[in-house]
Amino acid sequence: MAVENITASWEAVVGVDIGGTKMMAVVYDRNFNKLGVSRKRSRDKKGGDSEGRVFTVINEALQEAGNPVISGIGVGSPGPLDPHTGVIIDTPNLGWKNYPLADVLARSYKVPVTVDNDVNVGTYGEWCSTDLVHCRHVVGIFPGTGIGGGIILNGKILHGFSGAAGEVGHMTVVPDGPYCGCGKRGCLEAVASRIAIAKEVAALAAREDAPFILERCGTDLSEIRSGILARAIELGEKKVEGVVRQAAYYIGMAAGNLINILSPEAVVLGGGLVEAMETLFLEEVNRGVKDHAMPYLRRNVQIRPARLGDDVVVLGAAWLIVEYLQTM
Amino acid sequence: MAVENITASWEAVVGVDIGGTKMMAVVYDRNFNKLGVSRKRSRDKKGGDSEGRVFTVINEALQEAGNPVISGIGVGSPGPLDPHTGVIIDTPNLGWKNYPLADVLARSYKVPVTVDNDVNVGTYGEWCSTDLVHCRHVVGIFPGTGIGGGIILNGKILHGFSGAAGEVGHMTVVPDGPYCGCGKRGCLEAVASRIAIAKEVAALAAREDAPFILERCGTDLSEIRSGILARAIELGEKKVEGVVRQAAYYIGMAAGNLINILSPEAVVLGGGLVEAMETLFLEEVNRGVKDHAMPYLRRNVQIRPARLGDDVVVLGAAWLIVEYLQTM
Repeated sequence: MAVENITASWEAVVGVDIGGTKMMAVVYDRNFNKLGVSRKRSRDKKGGDSEGRVFTVINEALQEAGNPVISGIGVGSPGPLDPHTGVIIDTPNLGWKNYPLADVLARSYKVPVTVDNDVNVGTYGEWCSTDLVHCRHVVGIFPGTGIGGGIILNGKILHGFSGAAGEVGHMTVVPDGPYCGCGKRGCLEAVASRIAIAKEVAALAAREDAPFILERCGTDLSEIRSGILARAIELGEKKVEGVVRQAAYYIGMAAGNLINILSPEAVVLGGGLVEAMETLFLEEVNRGVKDHAMPYLRRNVQIRPARLGDDVVVLGAAWLIVEYLQTM
Repeated sequence: MAVENITASWEAVVGVDIGGTKMMAVVYDRNFNKLGVSRKRSRDKKGGDSEGRVFTVINEALQEAGNPVISGIGVGSPGPLDPHTGVIIDTPNLGWKNYPLADVLARSYKVPVTVDNDVNVGTYGEWCSTDLVHCRHVVGIFPGTGIGGGIILNGKILHGFSGAAGEVGHMTVVPDGPYCGCGKRGCLEAVASRIAIAKEVAALAAREDAPFILERCGTDLSEIRSGILARAIELGEKKVEGVVRQAAYYIGMAAGNLINILSPEAVVLGGGLVEAMETLFLEEVNRGVKDHAMPYLRRNVQIRPARLGDDVVVLGAAWLIVEYLQTM
């Protein structure tokens, strides 16, 4: 199969979502119907083999699809990475450092491969698969273990000079605030990620101010997941609710700053925390935006939850490779 | 002169800088040589007639140039304004509200007119008239009485959905910080503009902690201008220096956030404060960027002072109308 002949009539493409803990590949036909799906943990029990597992997950999805001719592979991967060369700069969770993922896959499957940051790809998937596609400028914020961001301006992912624009989680929102995993202080991620919330809630549990949490998770912050937080709030643990509201408000403050800078038409909120506590997050993010964005810029801006769930990255990755094929 | 016939070979253009206190118009030939210049206060002694004065300043510049045939007029004006329609939404300093400036000028001079935010135009002028033109992504920050920002991505001014993107001065940098002129709290402008600095320095003077300032300005913050601040620092008033360094550091923090979000190749600092205390500002902004931008994104980013002085807005405005003429 010659790469130069496939673009006019692409047949099927593969979208791949490489996460720190899970991988997923989906084969799509021209109408974006799923022909085959495969999911896997990203590393084996010894913590290795993430390179091999990317091939396995793609091969399994292809097999389920009946091994169709494919025209390209789109990948969403944790960063930092270089979207122009498809090299993963450094992903400690996968043990990759300067790993030429796009080249490796392109040589094996003999098709074009695009690689982009998973949050960029997720924002792009949400944009092009929903009515958001009518908006030219969209910002995605995905609070989870960390906080990722994706920026679409004029219908294109913003990569910037370094290729890694959109580090929304590392905007400083509280000068001299708590330490962040990146080594800086007061980043949005340090005050509003699941870990930042869990840390405060674990302290509540230690002080016996959150009995349900204490009973279910003890004081181990790793156990305090989105679903447990949502349940504690439903059960009326007011201090837990206060902690989550404060974090969501900080995300609203960051969203307000992004509106002041970029003037998007829509801000999309995704990830496990938002899925588990959608109403609370939307309330507080709207409050933060109202307090921190200029009225003229926030007017008519949609603040909304992501509509696609687990598929958003594979779908965005598939769209990106199709778009690439069409420009070839 | 028919508008449709002038684009292929434009002859001369007019760049206009409309400020809250001063206006300036320059007639440029095809090689961007100045053929005529005029400057004026923006309002008469009764505080009115800013519309009439725009015509006067353009007519005087044209007269000095020998009344050449002109192909277009580019204008930089305080915002908010709609760059697509050329309507000034609201500029209290000039008494303009929903004023269709582009239409008014286009009908009078029978040429195309572009209108954009003065800070956008200044950033654009700095970008296209210096070696920055080799950079695709540039951010301009102009601290003065307020703090303006301009964002160039892929060689184009970012306007966003509202037309008013780039409100760098109204990013929240200190949650629950001091009140800003916009009504919000803790905006960059509220902690790092000339007024924010002058307020702190006036308090130092009131406590007799800044004898030179007290002698020269009393405790009236309106008297505490950039040049006076620079002189006080030269004379060794350490607390004044501390106040200015803190403000400049906040600008560096905001620049760091902009680098995390946009990943520009260069950040340009302009305006009276930076001109008067360039070394201090560059030191503190670099320190703020180092503390707040991710290492991967700040690598190889130029932080530098604006190279053009008073002409930057008229020149940027002239470039913008020429660019518009070339796309017609």
